[in-house]
Amino acid sequence: MSRRTLKLGEVLLGVGGPGQHNTWLDPRIPANASVDVNWYLARAREAEAAKFDLVFIVDSQFITADSPNHYLSRLEPLTLLSAIAVHTSHIGLVGTLTTSYNEPFNVARRLYSLDHISGGRAGWNVVTSGDAGTAGNYSRDEHFDYPTRYGRALEHVEVVRGLWDSYEAGAFPRDKESGVFFDPDKQHALGHRGEYFSVVGPLNLERSPQGQPVIFQAGNSEEGRDLGASVGEVIFTHATSLAEAKAFRTELRERAAAKGRAPEGLLTLPGIGVVIADTDEEARAKEDALLGAKSFDRALRELGRPFGWHDFTRYDLDAPFPDVGDAGARSFRTQADAIKKLARDNAFTLRQVVEHLRESARSPFVGSPETVAGTIEHWFEEGGLDGLNISVNAAEEFALFTGRVLPILRARGVVRSDYESTTLRGNLGLPVPGNRHTAARAIAPSPALAP
Amino acid sequence: MSRRTLKLGEVLLGVGGPGQHNTWLDPRIPANASVDVNWYLARAREAEAAKFDLVFIVDSQFITADSPNHYLSRLEPLTLLSAIAVHTSHIGLVGTLTTSYNEPFNVARRLYSLDHISGGRAGWNVVTSGDAGTAGNYSRDEHFDYPTRYGRALEHVEVVRGLWDSYEAGAFPRDKESGVFFDPDKQHALGHRGEYFSVVGPLNLERSPQGQPVIFQAGNSEEGRDLGASVGEVIFTHATSLAEAKAFRTELRERAAAKGRAPEGLLTLPGIGVVIADTDEEARAKEDALLGAKSFDRALRELGRPFGWHDFTRYDLDAPFPDVGDAGARSFRTQADAIKKLARDNAFTLRQVVEHLRESARSPFVGSPETVAGTIEHWFEEGGLDGLNISVNAAEEFALFTGRVLPILRARGVVRSDYESTTLRGNLGLPVPGNRHTAARAIAPSPALAP
Ligand SMILES: Cc1cc2nc3c(=O)[nH]c(=O)nc-3n(C[C@H](O)[C@H](O)[C@H](O)COP(=O)(O)O)c2cc1C
Ligand SMILES: Cc1cc2nc3c(=O)[nH]c(=O)nc-3n(C[C@H](O)[C@H](O)[C@H](O)COP(=O)(O)O)c2cc1C
Repeated sequence: MSRRTLKLGEVLLGVGGPGQHNTWLDPRIPANASVDVNWYLARAREAEAAKFDLVFIVDSQFITADSPNHYLSRLEPLTLLSAIAVHTSHIGLVGTLTTSYNEPFNVARRLYSLDHISGGRAGWNVVTSGDAGTAGNYSRDEHFDYPTRYGRALEHVEVVRGLWDSYEAGAFPRDKESGVFFDPDKQHALGHRGEYFSVVGPLNLERSPQGQPVIFQAGNSEEGRDLGASVGEVIFTHATSLAEAKAFRTELRERAAAKGRAPEGLLTLPGIGVVIADTDEEARAKEDALLGAKSFDRALRELGRPFGWHDFTRYDLDAPFPDVGDAGARSFRTQADAIKKLARDNAFTLRQVVEHLRESARSPFVGSPETVAGTIEHWFEEGGLDGLNISVNAAEEFALFTGRVLPILRARGVVRSDYESTTLRGNLGLPVPGNRHTAARAIAPSPALAP
Repeated sequence: MSRRTLKLGEVLLGVGGPGQHNTWLDPRIPANASVDVNWYLARAREAEAAKFDLVFIVDSQFITADSPNHYLSRLEPLTLLSAIAVHTSHIGLVGTLTTSYNEPFNVARRLYSLDHISGGRAGWNVVTSGDAGTAGNYSRDEHFDYPTRYGRALEHVEVVRGLWDSYEAGAFPRDKESGVFFDPDKQHALGHRGEYFSVVGPLNLERSPQGQPVIFQAGNSEEGRDLGASVGEVIFTHATSLAEAKAFRTELRERAAAKGRAPEGLLTLPGIGVVIADTDEEARAKEDALLGAKSFDRALRELGRPFGWHDFTRYDLDAPFPDVGDAGARSFRTQADAIKKLARDNAFTLRQVVEHLRESARSPFVGSPETVAGTIEHWFEEGGLDGLNISVNAAEEFALFTGRVLPILRARGVVRSDYESTTLRGNLGLPVPGNRHTAARAIAPSPALAP
C-alpha cells in the first residue's frame, strides 16, 4: 500500500465583501468575481497546476439585503462546475446540492452528467440547508425539523446511489460490426419506495468513469455526524485546535466502523484559512488586519445567521446575551446551541460574544511558510486530518501557499508531487464502489469490485 | 427596421439508434455520442461557424429497455449547455427543463447562471413532460392531468420571470473607490403566493446580459398553444405542409395578439429534417434508405409512446386499430388523439396506421440544394415559419446544408451572413424585457425598456 498523503482542496468563493474581510476591495480581484466564470476558471486552473485534488463550491438559496456580499449574487454550483470541467483535466469538482429542496432523480442525473463530462471528477457535498428561510423559496411554510432534514438526506443519498447503479459496466456494447447497441439485461430499475421518496428508475445515464461520484458531507449535529458516518466519504468540518480535530476525526471513524465501514473509506478535511508571510510576526499582523476589516456591526448582524437570521441589533450590547427562545432550532442549530452555551458558561454580554467569536475566527495555520508547513504536517501525522480544504482570504495567499508551503510539504513526502489518477476517487485513494447488480450476479465478488 | 431574416437552430441529439434511423452505425459518428461532451462541443462549434442562432437540447426523464437508443443514456441538458457555453462565443444555448418536476427557484437559478456564464445566450424550452411514467421517478403515483400540467407551467414561468427581475440593472456598483458594493434599493423580493407555488425570493443572481433568457415552448394541445401565446417567444413545432405551418403560425400570432402581445415578439421555428443530395432524385432515394432503416417492429413499439408507452405488439396487425381506452390521456394526448382520428377517419388497421405514420415522417425539405433552399425561402416568405430548427439524420447532412443550401439563402438575403449580437435575444431580434421594478419606478417607461 502506498504511503498516506495529505489531500488538498480549495474552497472557491467568488470573493466579495465584508463577510470575507472586504477582499473585494483588493485591486487584484475582480469585484464581480462571484458571477465571473473566467475568475473561477483561472482559480481552478491555478489549483490544478498546483496538483490540488479538488475545488469546492459552497451554496445557499436564501438571501436578504443583509447577506454577505458574495451570497447576494453568485453562480449555481453545478452549472459552474460543468464549465470548469471542460477547461481542466485532473482536478476534482465538488458541488453543494441540498437534499431538502431537490429531487433525487434530478440530483443523480446532474451529478452523473458532470461525472461523464469531467471524465470521473465529480463530488457531491450533501447538505440539508441551514438557512430556515430557504423554505419560503420552495413553497413551504417552514423548513424541515432536524430529524426530517437528516432522515430525508440519508434516504436521498441512498436513492441517488441506487440510481447511479442503473446500468452495469458494459451495458452499452455499441458494436457497429454486429449492430448491438445495448444489453437490456444490464439495465436495472430501482423500485425504491421509502419514507420520503418513491423512485422507479432507471436513471438515463450509463456507468461513469469513477463508478459513483464521491460523497462529501459537512453536518455537525448528532444527526449530521450520523449521516457522515453512514454515507460520507469525505467529511468537511471546521477545526480550531489539534485536540478538537483529532477528537472529531476519531469519532467519525469509530462511528463509520460501527456501521461496518472501513475507516480508510472516510477522509476528514477541515476547512481552514491560511495566512502566510515571511515571518510569524508579519503573518500575525496580516491576520489582525484581515479580521479588523470586518466591522463590529457586520459581525453582529452575521451572528444572526445560525439563529435563522435573528436580529441582534435590537438588543443592548452590554446586557447579558439575550434569550432568543428557539430561534435557530431549524437553522444552524448546532452552531446556535454552541453560542448559547458559550454565553452561559462565561456569563458573556452580547458584545463579548461577538468579540469572542471574532477572536476565535483566527486560524491555527498562520505564520511563516516553515511554521505553516510544520503545523500542517504535525496535525496530519497526529491524525487530526487527512487533508485541507483551503479558503483564500487575500489575493496573494494561494500563491504563497503553493509557492512556499507546498514545496516544503512535498520535500517531506507529506504531499504527492503529481496526480496519480484522472478521477477524483483515484486521487483521493477511495475505493470504487461495485455496482450492486453486478455484485449480486457474481458468485463471489471480485476483489477489484468489492466496495 | 432591418429586414426580417430566417432564424436557424440545430437540434443536438446524441445520435444513437433505431429511433433515429440507425445513424449510430455510421462510422463517422462516435457510437457513444449521446454521452460524449466532445461530440457536442464539436457540433456546437460547427453550428457557430455557420452562424446558427442556436443549438437546442431536448430532454426526457423516463426510460424503459424499449426506449430509443439516444434516450437510454444521455447528458442532462443544462449541465451540457454550460460546458458548451465556455467553448463558444455567439451561439444561443437552449435547454429543455420540465415545469412538472422542477422547482421554479432552481430553474430560475440554473438558467440565469447559464445566462451569466454564456454572456446572455441562454434559452429555456418549457415543457410539461409528455411521458406519464416520469411521475414514478418523482415520488408521484400519477402524472398531472392536462389542466394541472399547463396551469403549473404558466405559473412556473411567471415565477421564474419574476425571480429574474430580483435585481434591477445597476444593483451592484461594486465601486472600489467609494467602497459601495451593493444598492439594497435595487433588490426586490417576489412574494409570490399562487395556486401551485409560493416563492418569497429574491433570487441570488444579479441581472444578466440579456435581461431574461428567451422562452421557447412546444406544446400543441389547446392548453399548450395557450401557454405558447401567453409566454412563448419562440414556438417549436412540427410542420408537414406549408398550409399547416401557415395556419399554425397565424393562429399563434393571433392568440398572442389577443393577449395584448406584439406578434413580432413571437417566432415560429418548426423542427425539420433536411435530406440533401446533388439531385432531387438522389435525395429522395437517400430519404427512402433513412426511413427504411427503422424496422417495422421498432416503429410499432414507438407508436406506444404517445399512448404512455402502450404495448401495441400484443394486437393483431391486420385487425382494425385497437381501442386503447384513455391510454395517453396524461401523456402526449394531442398526438394520441390525432392518431386515433387518423385510424377512425380512414378505417385503418394497426399495420396501416404504422405504415401511414412512417410515410408521414417524410420531410418537405428533401432535394437538391436549390430545391431545398427554394422550399425554405418559399415557406419563409409565405409566412409559414420564422426559422428552422434542423435535426440532422445523417453524418454528412449538416455539412451539405451549411455548405450548399445556406450560401444560396445568404445570396438571396434570406439568411444573415454574420451574428448581429452576442446575445441570443439580440440575434433573434427579440426585445429585451424591462425589469418590472425599474418600469414601476419610472414615470414613463423608456421605449428601449418597454417589453
Ligand atoms: C466546511 C463546511 C461547509 C459547509 N457548506 C455548506 C454549504 O455549502 N451549504 C449549506 O447549506 N450548508 C453548508 N454547511 C452546513 C452544514 O452542512 C449543515 O447544514 C449545518 O452545519 C447545520 O447542520 P448541523 O447542525 O448538522 O451542522 C457546511 C458546513 C461546513 C462545516
Ligand atoms: C419540436 C418539439 C420539441 C419538443 N421537445 C420536448 C422535450 O424535449 N421534452 C419533452 O418532454 N417534451 C417535448 N416536446 C413535447 C411537448 O412540449 C409536449 O409535452 C407534448 O407535445 C405533449 O403536450 P401537448 O399535447 O400540449 O402537445 C416537444 C414538442 C415539439 C413539437
